[in-house]
Amino acid sequence: MDHGELGGFLLAFAAALVGAKVFGELCERLGQPSVLGELLAGVVLGPSVLGIVPLSFGILLLAEIGVMLLLFEVGLETDLEELARVGGSALAVAALGMILPFLGGYLLTLAAGFSSLTSLFVGAAMTATSIGITSRVLSELNALKSREGQIILGAAVADDILGLVVLAVVSQIAATGTVALGSVAKAAGLSFGFLIVAIVIGMPLARVLVRAVAWAGVRGILVTASVAFALLAALGAEKAGSAAIVGAFAAGAVLARTDRSRDIHHAVRPIVDVFAPIFFVAIGAQVNVGYLNPMVPENRPALLLALGLVVVGTLGKFAAGYAARGKVRRSFIGAGMIPRGEVGLIFAQIGKQNGALPEPVFIAVVIAVFITTFLTPPLLKWLRPPETKGSTS
Amino acid sequence: MDHGELGGFLLAFAAALVGAKVFGELCERLGQPSVLGELLAGVVLGPSVLGIVPLSFGILLLAEIGVMLLLFEVGLETDLEELARVGGSALAVAALGMILPFLGGYLLTLAAGFSSLTSLFVGAAMTATSIGITSRVLSELNALKSREGQIILGAAVADDILGLVVLAVVSQIAATGTVALGSVAKAAGLSFGFLIVAIVIGMPLARVLVRAVAWAGVRGILVTASVAFALLAALGAEKAGSAAIVGAFAAGAVLARTDRSRDIHHAVRPIVDVFAPIFFVAIGAQVNVGYLNPMVPENRPALLLALGLVVVGTLGKFAAGYAARGKVRRSFIGAGMIPRGEVGLIFAQIGKQNGALPEPVFIAVVIAVFITTFLTPPLLKWLRPPETKGSTS
Repeated sequence: MDHGELGGFLLAFAAALVGAKVFGELCERLGQPSVLGELLAGVVLGPSVLGIVPLSFGILLLAEIGVMLLLFEVGLETDLEELARVGGSALAVAALGMILPFLGGYLLTLAAGFSSLTSLFVGAAMTATSIGITSRVLSELNALKSREGQIILGAAVADDILGLVVLAVVSQIAATGTVALGSVAKAAGLSFGFLIVAIVIGMPLARVLVRAVAWAGVRGILVTASVAFALLAALGAEKAGSAAIVGAFAAGAVLARTDRSRDIHHAVRPIVDVFAPIFFVAIGAQVNVGYLNPMVPENRPALLLALGLVVVGTLGKFAAGYAARGKVRRSFIGAGMIPRGEVGLIFAQIGKQNGALPEPVFIAVVIAVFITTFLTPPLLKWLRPPETKGSTS
Repeated sequence: MDHGELGGFLLAFAAALVGAKVFGELCERLGQPSVLGELLAGVVLGPSVLGIVPLSFGILLLAEIGVMLLLFEVGLETDLEELARVGGSALAVAALGMILPFLGGYLLTLAAGFSSLTSLFVGAAMTATSIGITSRVLSELNALKSREGQIILGAAVADDILGLVVLAVVSQIAATGTVALGSVAKAAGLSFGFLIVAIVIGMPLARVLVRAVAWAGVRGILVTASVAFALLAALGAEKAGSAAIVGAFAAGAVLARTDRSRDIHHAVRPIVDVFAPIFFVAIGAQVNVGYLNPMVPENRPALLLALGLVVVGTLGKFAAGYAARGKVRRSFIGAGMIPRGEVGLIFAQIGKQNGALPEPVFIAVVIAVFITTFLTPPLLKWLRPPETKGSTS
């Protein structure tokens, strides 16, 4: 890379870190999760306001590394047995949490006078839950290990996998007008199968890794080997048609069962501290504040549709929380599924590129994605189960 | 970034980490510094052998982050007062270590029948010392804080600054056939001035940073703020016409004087563990093993010239070690200045681009850069002062 490039990258990287921490601290002082501040820092530093943090390849690469390591860390804090115990609830929440927002988004867009293809894409974009936002808030609230936290996490993982299947389906419909159900079933089977195989194969592999590390003496071997393990699991997930972050999560979850999990977590933590904020800042940086001004007449149809989408998207996920069984706070679970984040943006982007989403609908989806994302941290904080309230966050 | 790109990047990142640690461990078991293994891993994984680690933008970006954080960590282990005490020796070593290899490279290339412009570029390429390689070996040998280590470090920092000035001079000569001495003096003053100003301004800034961090409560604030501080210092160095790594080093050196230096070092360490190997692997990946085969007749003139350059380049830096004063092991100091690494490659690249270096001479310079780089770790290990031998590395 030449010197001009390096300079711009250094400035963006440093500004994102400083902005994330300053806004994060402000949010904490106002009683809000710091991730909300990181998202807001992204809006302010991003292209539509100050333009200090561009959505350049370098920043997006760090964001990608950041969210993978974040999910790896979340995996390290996950108890697979507990996750399996709440698996039924998690799947029910995930399924209902995709069906209800899909129907809501579809019918609303149809009612607003758009084509059924457009409505299909909007419905699909409403199905995705951002596991990054949710797990970060859960971690800040110290609720990751609560039963509610594990149900949300399980449902968000299932949602991430199902979301990619839905994306494949609607993309196929947009391209060919029809859908081959066999290929859809295969894609769904492959990506769920990957997760199960990854965990089954990953357990002995994780033990081998920990033993090999104990035998080696070179500096930094434990953290390097663990990060490489996470990267390879992410690559495997990617190749199996699942999401890279699901692989990183699985890698963390199997390493959590080894006797070095505390040391790994301790070493990974500062790396997550430095790179994960870049992910949240990069999401915020994608907000175009120009679209949010209701005084501009052209913005109004998009804003109106966006408000409708927020209502159906929020209520749909919220209601899905009530599919959870057992003695749990269902409102908290539903709220945890609300943020759309990066997955919703990917849907919107693809729908715009293949012509399924006309400009005002695209803008409406993007706005709805952001509102649900920004809404979740305070909502979760407000609804959190009483037993997590006294703990340090 | 799309999915194919992400997959290739994940594979390259993971392979570089695994390769670095496997080869590093092998080297340590053979009694060699592990950084030699990381360089060799790069050769094997790089484009000219297996092709698993390409010199893609993503990998080069991680390498850049890695070397900056490595120098930041070296700065954190540096005692500025000790560095100032040995400053005279360091400057003498740096100056002589540029003059001797320059004359050797210049006269040798001239004697081999090449033009004086070509000879000028070759001489200039021989002046650079790679602070990354040297400081990593010193750190592994636990010799960073020895008097010899501090002289080498000081000389390597001075060399990095002077090297950029030399690069500006020869580039100007190649472009215009002449050189404006005023602009050269200005560039040299600016980049040395930056270092002094950075340290003078940096000291109170570092104290302000530590106090602000103590006041804030948000997670990861200490490591994030420290890394941002290093990035901003690197950016400042870059803008002042100095090298980014010099800025990162200065940031570490001033933070070393605060009362949180141990905590910062503790948190930065695993990040360096994960990213610095990418830098050394990326250097190794730039070796084209095809050029090294003496059985190919076309390779022979380049190999012959390369051998000559290795001799004058090694002897020149080695002799410069004897410019150090006081009770120190001068051979160790000279050996520490030998590796050319990435800076030598930048010279060769620019010389090739502007036509000053014909193909065989370019190849010869690149080979000489690599041989000096690979030679240094075992040489330093062999020559290290007796008082560091008993210590853990």
